[in-house]
This record gives sequence, C-alpha cells and structure tokens, in this order.
Amino acid sequence: MLSDLEIAQQASMKPIVEIAREAGIEEDDIELYGKYKAKVSLEVLKKLKDRPLGKYIDVTAITPTPLGEGKTVTTIGLSMALNKIGKKSIVCIRQPSLGPVFGIKGGAAGGGYSQVVPMEDFNLHLTGDTHAVAAAHNLLAAFIDNHLLHGNELNIDPFTISWPRVVDISDRALRKIIVGLGGKTNGIPRESSFDIAVASEVMAILALTTDIFDLRKRLGRIVVAYNERKEPVTAEDLRCAGAMTVLMRDAIKPNLLQTLENTPCFVHAGPFANIAHGNSSIVADQIALRLADYVVTESGFGADCGMEKFMNIKCRYSGLRPDCVVMVCSIRALKMHSGKYKVIPGKPLDPGILEEDIDALVKGSENLIKQIENARLFGVPVVVAINVFSTDTEREIETVKKIALDNGAFRACVSEVWAKGGEGGKELAEAVVEACDVPSNFDFLYPLDIPIKDKIEIIATKIYGADGVVYEPEAEKKIARYTELGWDKLPICMAKTHLSLSHDPKLKGRPRGFKLPIKDIRPSIGAGFLYPLCGEMRTMPGLPSRPAGMNVDIDSEGRVVGLF
Amino acid sequence: MLSDLEIAQQASMKPIVEIAREAGIEEDDIELYGKYKAKVSLEVLKKLKDRPLGKYIDVTAITPTPLGEGKTVTTIGLSMALNKIGKKSIVCIRQPSLGPVFGIKGGAAGGGYSQVVPMEDFNLHLTGDTHAVAAAHNLLAAFIDNHLLHGNELNIDPFTISWPRVVDISDRALRKIIVGLGGKTNGIPRESSFDIAVASEVMAILALTTDIFDLRKRLGRIVVAYNERKEPVTAEDLRCAGAMTVLMRDAIKPNLLQTLENTPCFVHAGPFANIAHGNSSIVADQIALRLADYVVTESGFGADCGMEKFMNIKCRYSGLRPDCVVMVCSIRALKMHSGKYKVIPGKPLDPGILEEDIDALVKGSENLIKQIENARLFGVPVVVAINVFSTDTEREIETVKKIALDNGAFRACVSEVWAKGGEGGKELAEAVVEACDVPSNFDFLYPLDIPIKDKIEIIATKIYGADGVVYEPEAEKKIARYTELGWDKLPICMAKTHLSLSHDPKLKGRPRGFKLPIKDIRPSIGAGFLYPLCGEMRTMPGLPSRPAGMNVDIDSEGRVVGLF
Repeated sequence: MLSDLEIAQQASMKPIVEIAREAGIEEDDIELYGKYKAKVSLEVLKKLKDRPLGKYIDVTAITPTPLGEGKTVTTIGLSMALNKIGKKSIVCIRQPSLGPVFGIKGGAAGGGYSQVVPMEDFNLHLTGDTHAVAAAHNLLAAFIDNHLLHGNELNIDPFTISWPRVVDISDRALRKIIVGLGGKTNGIPRESSFDIAVASEVMAILALTTDIFDLRKRLGRIVVAYNERKEPVTAEDLRCAGAMTVLMRDAIKPNLLQTLENTPCFVHAGPFANIAHGNSSIVADQIALRLADYVVTESGFGADCGMEKFMNIKCRYSGLRPDCVVMVCSIRALKMHSGKYKVIPGKPLDPGILEEDIDALVKGSENLIKQIENARLFGVPVVVAINVFSTDTEREIETVKKIALDNGAFRACVSEVWAKGGEGGKELAEAVVEACDVPSNFDFLYPLDIPIKDKIEIIATKIYGADGVVYEPEAEKKIARYTELGWDKLPICMAKTHLSLSHDPKLKGRPRGFKLPIKDIRPSIGAGFLYPLCGEMRTMPGLPSRPAGMNVDIDSEGRVVGLF
Repeated sequence: MLSDLEIAQQASMKPIVEIAREAGIEEDDIELYGKYKAKVSLEVLKKLKDRPLGKYIDVTAITPTPLGEGKTVTTIGLSMALNKIGKKSIVCIRQPSLGPVFGIKGGAAGGGYSQVVPMEDFNLHLTGDTHAVAAAHNLLAAFIDNHLLHGNELNIDPFTISWPRVVDISDRALRKIIVGLGGKTNGIPRESSFDIAVASEVMAILALTTDIFDLRKRLGRIVVAYNERKEPVTAEDLRCAGAMTVLMRDAIKPNLLQTLENTPCFVHAGPFANIAHGNSSIVADQIALRLADYVVTESGFGADCGMEKFMNIKCRYSGLRPDCVVMVCSIRALKMHSGKYKVIPGKPLDPGILEEDIDALVKGSENLIKQIENARLFGVPVVVAINVFSTDTEREIETVKKIALDNGAFRACVSEVWAKGGEGGKELAEAVVEACDVPSNFDFLYPLDIPIKDKIEIIATKIYGADGVVYEPEAEKKIARYTELGWDKLPICMAKTHLSLSHDPKLKGRPRGFKLPIKDIRPSIGAGFLYPLCGEMRTMPGLPSRPAGMNVDIDSEGRVVGLF
C-alpha cells in the first residue's frame, strides 16, 4: 500500500494558474509561490461582489478519539465528490502547524486519495503565513520588555503581562521560562512562556479579519497587560500594531492549492480550537463563496467545539450563513463512546473494537445523537458521514444510519473518500446538495447583548448538556472586570477539552448530570472574543520520545521522504 | 527630498520573469513568489556548467563608523553602472534580518537611487529563508531538550549544550534565560539563550553550501554538545538533520530581485560577520558568474572582517576566485579615524567633521592604507570608491585619491550612486573593468594544514597589524581539544569587533603595538570553520528606546509607510 506522501508525489497536479482560472480568478489577482501555490489578492472580493453566494457547508464531527475521525479527509473528499457530480466546489481548510508535523501527529493534508497537494508544501512552510504570525507576535513581545526597560512610561505592571512569545515547533522546555537574566543590559527578569505559533492571538485575528484595515484595528486592540491603574495596555499603546500589520500584509491573502483531483483548495490560517475558535479564515470563505456553487469548510475538533464557534463566532464576524453541516463519525469512535473500549494514541487498537459490537455501537451513538442535536440548534440541516473502515460491518453501518435518521439527521451515508477519492463520496455529495436546498433557518445560539455568564450558560447547558456552570473566584473577578471594561459584548470562545462533550476528557458518550467549571476567563480583544477556561489548556505541545521528524529526510534524488 | 521607501515605491519594476529571461534563466528554472520575486532552481548550474565564468568583484570597506559607509549602496550602484557602460552585470547581496529593520538601523536595501526592489519585500520576509533557518535551528534545539528528558541515550552533558534557540527579532530579554521550569512534564531546567536568527550556524551553512546533499551533510555535522566522554554530539546523532534539510529545501534556492534600474539582483543568506563569515551565498554567486560578465558582491563590515573571510573561507569552499576588490570609504569616516571626531549613532554629527579638515583626513587615511594593503595581500587589485557626500570638498577628494594611488590602489574614484544611480558610478565601473583585466594573482593567506594557532597569528599580524596573539586558558584548552578531534584543518573565522582593525573598538585609524587577545574558540563544524572570540560578541541585539518599528504602518490605501 502506498503511503500518503507517495500518493501525493504521484499526483497529476495542474499549474495553479490553471486551477485559479478554472475557479474564476484572473491571473492578475494571484501571486504565484512556485508553480503549484498562489496567494489570492483580496481585491477579487471587490470584483466579485455582485456574484451570488454559493452554498456553505461546515464539516464537523462527533467527539473524536485522540486519533481523529477523518474530518479533513471527508472535507477534501466531499469537495472532490461535489465536482464529480457536476457541482462547482471549492474546499477551504486550515494550515497545519509545523509542531505536530515533526512531533506526534505527522502531516495534516488529509490522507489516502483525499489529499491537498503539494503535500510537502502544505505541511511545511507553505507561503510563510505562520512565520509571519510568529514574527508579528514576537515583535510585540520584544516591544513590551523593551518598554519596561526604557522607563515604562505606560506604567505596565510586569506581573500582569499575558503576552507570551511563540515558536512554531513543539518545544516543552519553553513552556515556563525566566527571561531577562544577566543584568540590566538584558532587561528586567520575569517569568514568561512560549506558546506554539498557531496558539497566538495573531493567528486567531488572521482567521477572523476581513481586510487589511480591519486587521490593523484588531492588532491594535490586542491587550498585552494592565497598567498600575488596572487599565488594559494594548499593542496600539505600545505603537507596535502598524509594524505588525506590515509583517502580515502577505499573510492576509489566502493560499490557493489543489486536491489530488484538481479541486481548488484554499488553505488559510490555523488557530487553536480551544483557546481560539479553530476555523480557517473568513476571507478565504468569502472569496470561495463568490466563485463556487458549494464551499466545503471544516471546523476543529467535535461539533461542540469548532462547529459551535464556527456558528457563533466566525459566522457572526463574516456575516456568512451555513446551509448544511456534515457530521463525520466512525464506527470505532462510536464504539469507544460506549465506554467499553479505550483508544490510546501510540498503542495498538483494542482488538474488540475491530469486531462487530452492535450493543457498544448503539450505546456510544448517544454522542452522535447529541452532536446532531447541537447542529440542529442553529437551524441547519445535518448530513451524517460515516467514514468507513474495512473492519466495519454492514449491520453496524445500517445501525448508525438508522440512529442518525431517527434523531434529526437529514441524511446519513457512508464515505469512502480515503480509499476512492471523490468517487467514494458521491452519495454524500448528493445528500449534501439536497440538504442545501432545504431552506435554512439559521440563528445564533445567543445574542451579544446579554451578560457574559448568560452566554456561557447557554453554551454549557444547550451544547454540552451540563446542568449548570460553577465559577471559580478568579473567573468571577474577571467577569466583573471585563463587564466594567465593556468587553461583555463579545462572543464567547470556550476553552474546553475536545475529548468529551463535558470538561472531563474521561466522560465519553453523552455525559449528563455534570456542572461545567470555569476556572478563569481571558480576553482576546483583538480577535474579538473572551475565552473561559474549563480546565488546563496546553498551548505548547511536547515531542514524543521518537518524534515524527526523525523519519523525515531527503532521498538520493533530493526528494522528501518520511513525511506522513 | 524623497525617502528611500518613496523612491522604491516609484520604481518602474519589470516582471521578474523578464529580468530572469534577460539574465539568461529560463522560466522553467524559476519559481515565482509574486510578480517581482523568484527563487532560482539550482538545476540551472548543471545547464550552465560549460559557460565561462564572469569577473568576480568583492565590495568591501575601510573600518566603518557605526553609521556604515555606504557599501551596499555602492555594491548595487556599481552593478547598475556596469550595465550602463554596456557590461552585463548581476549583483549578489545578503538578506537582512528583521531585527535591525524594526530596531535601530531600519532597512538594508541600499538607499537613494541605488536600491533593490521591491524594498518592502527585501526588508520583510522576502521568500521566508530566514524563517526556514529559524525553524530548522529551533527544531534541533527542541530535539536536544527532548532527548535529555527521554532518557538521554547519547549521554549528553547538559552543561556543554552550546546550541541556543533563535528568533529573528531584536529581543534582549531572551539573551539569558532559564528553560524547562515547571516540573518534569516541561523538561529539565537549564540555563540557555536565544540568538537572533541570522546568527544561527544554519544561516552560515546556507551561505556556504553548494547543493542539497552538501547541505544535508553540513547540517548533520553540527555539534550541539558533548557527551560524558567529552565526544561531540551532532545533529546527525540526534536524527534531526534530515528534517532540518527538508525545512531548508526551498531556502537553498537563491532569490532573484532587481535594482531600481532593473539589474538582476540575487539576495541570498545573511550570516553574521563576526561569529560567522558575513557573506551572501555561494550558490547565488556560482549561478550569477555563469550568467553575467561582471558579478558584484559585498562582504560584511570592513576589509579586515568580511573581505578576509570572503577570501579565506567563502572562496575556499566555492572554488571561485575574485578579480577585483572595491574599497568603499567616506571622507567623514576617514576624518573620524584621525581620532579627532566621534561618530555616535542616534546623535547629530560633530559639526567639525562636516568642515574641510585635510589634516584629520590625512591622519585617518592610515586606515584606508592598511585596508588596501589587506586586499593586496591576497593578490587582488583594489579600486577605491569614495562614497561622496555633499559636504565633501574637492581638495578632500583629491587628497584621498592621491593617498590611495600612492599606497597600492589600482584606481580611486568618486561614487555618486546614492544620488544618481548607475549614472553616478560610471567612472567607478570603468575602473573596475580595467582592474578585472589585470591578471589576478590570487592566493589564500594561509593553507589549511598548519596548526590553529599559526592560522590565527597570520590573520592577526598580517591583516590586523597586531604584534602577536595572547591566548586565554579557555582558548588554549579548546585549541588542544579541537586539534585532537581533527578540527584543526578548518579555516578560521575571527569574531572581532568591526569598529577597529584591532580587537578594541576605540582604537581608530591603523592601530599598532597591540597584541590580539583570544578569549575562547568555538566550532561551527557544519558551516566548516572555527571562530576564535576576540572579545564579547553580541548575538542578540536589543531595541532602542524608540524602535524604528514604531514608525512602520500602512497608509489609507494599505501601502507600507515608515520603512527606511
């Protein structure tokens, strides 16, 4: 069997100018980055503004196992399948971080016969957007420490500085550091930290911004610390936001690549899905929706995480409205949700999970039922996509389909796009087309002008199924202060584990009878949301004992090998 | 008067495909990065291998003031002037770091009417090479700490780890840090540091490598620490060199831009000029020399620093031989070298230095005389270029010309390329053409197979004019150990201040009667040199109280402003 990289390297790619032309983008509006990558100028939005919007499809999933359920594969495959059945489709996905590529997970360009190519570029620097994010982020960090050293005119309280530095490598040794040692010429010693670059608020801003002027304003609004009067200190106050914008002036343009079947693919921005909203960029979707009849995008983690934020945050800022949600599930993950089987990354699967087990499947499908309900709460039709594995039995597949249809799904079908490419997703594509024709009844889950606690409680009870919310004192204090500052009008971006509908990763299926604890709440004023913490959120991964990077090399012809 | 950025933004640029075609590079061999930047495939070297080599000109300078003497301006202007007098010329320069752009110095794309464009791209991310260097560097750093945590199979002695992390921002707070705090899940606490990205050995390797396989080997040879048996531990031992190579697979291709007068300009690699060799890439020069009749390149700092390394290190690894040295000087710098005037960055110039002062000029020209001698030591003809300012008098200019010609210069002429572009450098270009016709008598200053100390002493006495060398105990110990390890066959890359011919920045003119102290000596085995330290070398700049980045912004049309 061929590896993902081998399949990708055998792809018959078209020059990206051609892909762009076929999508309706003129050569003048793209900037080539080699023959198979291009940045698309935001100017096209002006040219296309009178075109009708295509249908907007968000691919999400049940609560995943730590192995993932094939959401990116389905997203790419569905878009290819839509083209196969004669519908003009574009796919919009996130750019992965270098951290996982060389760490645990390996690449993130889909897999099998549903991939984005060139896969090496996709997984490595692409066009440098994440590096631009890191440079802008770190320039601001350097400005902060420099300000402290040169008189601290803004009266920044050093203990309130919440702006870390970032690097796009998994490097646990940087999680907690002391900077500024070595005497006065090196600045003022203080405790600090590094996050992985994609966890930067600048990345969330890139994903949510709508043009360069909006970008400039959002960067200026970033709050990095408080002064001695407890007032927020911003990037604007430090006079850094202009330089940050200039560092981001290419990054704001979406990157155009293609799938193995030459479907246009926008790859743009990759914010975290817990402390940030976990969705690809608004500008890419806006352009795609003026060009294609069907735009397929993906949101991070399960429907309770990325999809909820897609609806309540991304769509709120973009003004775009989804027409259909695709809910990806796998039989093995549903069985895991029964509580009978554990899935542990790096260890072989429990053999039991690979055998037919209708009881476990029915029990675990509680999770699917709740996640379908979650999408329906926004008034959007749901198509369930069963990402099939060779070990799944016909009876298991029929069981899931029936449960889905009995519980509010518009359609439920299998997806074989991993093994067969677009051909393996035709049934799914037809179902999605039908779903998009149903008049959508979209609405946000909460309005912005209600108190912070009300918003949190709506998400906790309606989406997670909690009985209520418990606030720790730190969270209470912050809610009071943020309300005084007028930040209570922002949407809420819950920082919660993706491994359970609840805050506890061990609670599988559809947890009930729990209260959601809020430990703290933090502001991303530039991105435009508050993020309550329902537990420890790791913003800097570590490397495993044998990092994936150990296998990456060049062969005797200089080609990349060992990238997964 | 227009700012550099305004002049650059008014440039009439040609599409880079056209620049490449005129230079003799086919469209198939370039990868566009937008319309005005391209990477050139190293495959062209195979196609061009039977073409004759052009003439090879290194632009260097007297010992500069902290303001710089206009070396980059002269380099760019000379290349444009050569084209103006009908000679096909290409210019090859270094890529600047983001640190100075937002810190003290501002941009580095030349100035006035001798600039490389697009100036914003040149000064910002360009095509991401420095970010790739940083990612490769930091991946190795993460692998080291990860190795320590996961059992330390290689028995690395943590106190010997000499591989810092890097970031391409001036950030003094990262000069001395403690990493790995917060308990075992965050790794093992130890003292460490960040350098600016361009100080990375990976950047020196990029500048000295000749192809992707050589790059792979050099990265593998990087020594990061010693084990408990005091044997070197390399990137190869840590199984990181393959992934580092893959991260650098685009960075190895030279970047093609153009000057304000559409002269092709390779911008590639930017290693430090003290702890590294301070010259642009070998591969760019190799390609340019097969395409043009005259290739003008620049080496960092004064002739005692960058030029000596250009000859003894870069030309040794490339196999290329220079035909002419251009020695840039300014009247104000020569007067400064008399000791009568001080030039302090950020402060207004001493008004005296702007008045005619032949005595000071004659006295300070001792420095010029020595630097001419330094170039002549390699058997290469020297053309002195006086970078004129409006305050220079005719008598002053004639005085310098006479001194230069009386002391070994082949020609001496004024350069007005800053104010007039190529037109202002025609006399200089004619002189360079004549000099290149003189049969060159090039030889290295030292062979590789003599002891480390002999090599250091040859550079110290012949180039710097020292009476001898004094080794501190640490240096003695290292020399003995490196000799045992077989590293004594490498060339020497002196880490010395650029502000004096000696090790003491206060000693101006032509210092005599001093002994050169060697405090320590360090290995860059991947790059392929040892670097003795003649004092503290700062590898992470700080920001001033008002960083240049504060002025950088976008205007109401989204264009960059405030970049110098």
